[in-house]
Amino acid sequence: MDLCIDIGATKTFVAAFNEDSLEICDYEQFLTESSKGFSDFLERLSLVCKRLLKQDKPRFWGVCTAGAVDENGVILWSPNLGWKDFDLKNSLSVIFGDNGIIENDCNAAAYAEARIRQSENLAYVTVSTGIGMGLIIKGEIFHGSHFTAGEIGHTIIEEDGPICSCGRRGCLQALSSGRGLENQIYSLLKQKLSCEEILKRAEEGIEPYRGIVLHGAKVLGRFLTNVVDILDLETLVIGGGLTKNKFYTNLVVEYIQKNYYELPGKIVSVELSKIKPNPGVIGVLLLGRKIFGGV
Amino acid sequence: MDLCIDIGATKTFVAAFNEDSLEICDYEQFLTESSKGFSDFLERLSLVCKRLLKQDKPRFWGVCTAGAVDENGVILWSPNLGWKDFDLKNSLSVIFGDNGIIENDCNAAAYAEARIRQSENLAYVTVSTGIGMGLIIKGEIFHGSHFTAGEIGHTIIEEDGPICSCGRRGCLQALSSGRGLENQIYSLLKQKLSCEEILKRAEEGIEPYRGIVLHGAKVLGRFLTNVVDILDLETLVIGGGLTKNKFYTNLVVEYIQKNYYELPGKIVSVELSKIKPNPGVIGVLLLGRKIFGGV
Repeated sequence: MDLCIDIGATKTFVAAFNEDSLEICDYEQFLTESSKGFSDFLERLSLVCKRLLKQDKPRFWGVCTAGAVDENGVILWSPNLGWKDFDLKNSLSVIFGDNGIIENDCNAAAYAEARIRQSENLAYVTVSTGIGMGLIIKGEIFHGSHFTAGEIGHTIIEEDGPICSCGRRGCLQALSSGRGLENQIYSLLKQKLSCEEILKRAEEGIEPYRGIVLHGAKVLGRFLTNVVDILDLETLVIGGGLTKNKFYTNLVVEYIQKNYYELPGKIVSVELSKIKPNPGVIGVLLLGRKIFGGV
Repeated sequence: MDLCIDIGATKTFVAAFNEDSLEICDYEQFLTESSKGFSDFLERLSLVCKRLLKQDKPRFWGVCTAGAVDENGVILWSPNLGWKDFDLKNSLSVIFGDNGIIENDCNAAAYAEARIRQSENLAYVTVSTGIGMGLIIKGEIFHGSHFTAGEIGHTIIEEDGPICSCGRRGCLQALSSGRGLENQIYSLLKQKLSCEEILKRAEEGIEPYRGIVLHGAKVLGRFLTNVVDILDLETLVIGGGLTKNKFYTNLVVEYIQKNYYELPGKIVSVELSKIKPNPGVIGVLLLGRKIFGGV
């Protein structure tokens, strides 16, 4: 059995796979509650895993999570989880054996998309509460020099833009993410609206929702167009909670398709993620199978 | 003897190197005059090379040039030279033997900078009449899916910005390159001023030169900051004609140093190119020696 775990800011999802399949055979989900600390989380996680494994040792285990993960499987930092220098690889190896991998969730998702789409140079972008990206370069995850490649949430778009959670102004995330849209409306109108409600009002043409949403989609589209052109990618895949909203997603996708720099022979495919249950989990499954045998 | 050639839009530079040295032992330069056609250019090039080689066959030969070059050494297209599908590798192999390589000039420059600075993940940016970039990923040149990685001149910065040579508006090159600054002043004042003169007036605080130059430097600095953050590079090297102007260069370098997203352990080095006679020539020399033996 192969065991894959997605540690999210809110929930942790644990899935077991038969060794020849990409379909989940069993799964459980629980609240991450990272603020209770590492040991508490580890205890709850290992109980869930043991239940799913039914006394078996897994062939391998794989974890994807937000934040920077180094080559030894240490979570260097993760703003969403509030963890720092957490040696997750070692802790899980003690329980489930050495056959394990830990990867950033966007990197893992990018790997799944690249393998399934047979694409060599690909970016996976998640547009959700925040914005993140994973990069596949020549068929492999590219981690960068400090394990932060693809950390695009705090790239600067407008020096005088809305204030961001990082303390700076006009970051991509402050303009175009779910939380960014909510915060912009709150600053302007003192209305605490959900991103879904803001997008609904924008689609109905109501100002200032429409203006803020169109601007967020435009700058995100422009940014991703530039990523495609800088790296000469063949595939860009967009996932995350906001892709459920067709109005917003279409604005972004259409911007990219219309504006990437066309050169002789250059074709770029812009797609929405369709991998179930989520591309991060399938990413660590495929990575694990590549390393520890299997399909 | 190792033979290295830089085919520029205006001039072609041919240098001979002793096989154990990075110092040029002999060189010649001539007008490229690409409009006279391939055969005419090849004839003039081979005469110059033969003079430098003094009857010898080179150990290897290397060419760097503007435009997209594929893995077979075919120049797919080059707006600066006006050439398309020019099989330069094959043509030069007939004259000088099979030991040859052809590379895009910015890619070759990036390779030289990465080797000399011992950097694994690096971008080399040329800021000159136009703007171009070469990328080193995990110690190797990254070409992208269609041999256009690093073609950043026509990435869109402002949808309603100044008209670009490509027919679109607000490309990076239209805002921040030498030609871009000249064109913006011409559109506004109908003055045909050189980029040097515009930068001089900007430094003296004279409007509208100052405003246009500060804006050009800011958007270039912001773009390169985002390149550094997207890829988590450890080194960014800036070269090209405009780096002779300290006022402009400092604005760009300081923007990047101040604004890249600081994360635990992340240090980015932003440097000016210092490689003589030019990093592209040294890049093909080092690439050639790696492939065909030598240092």
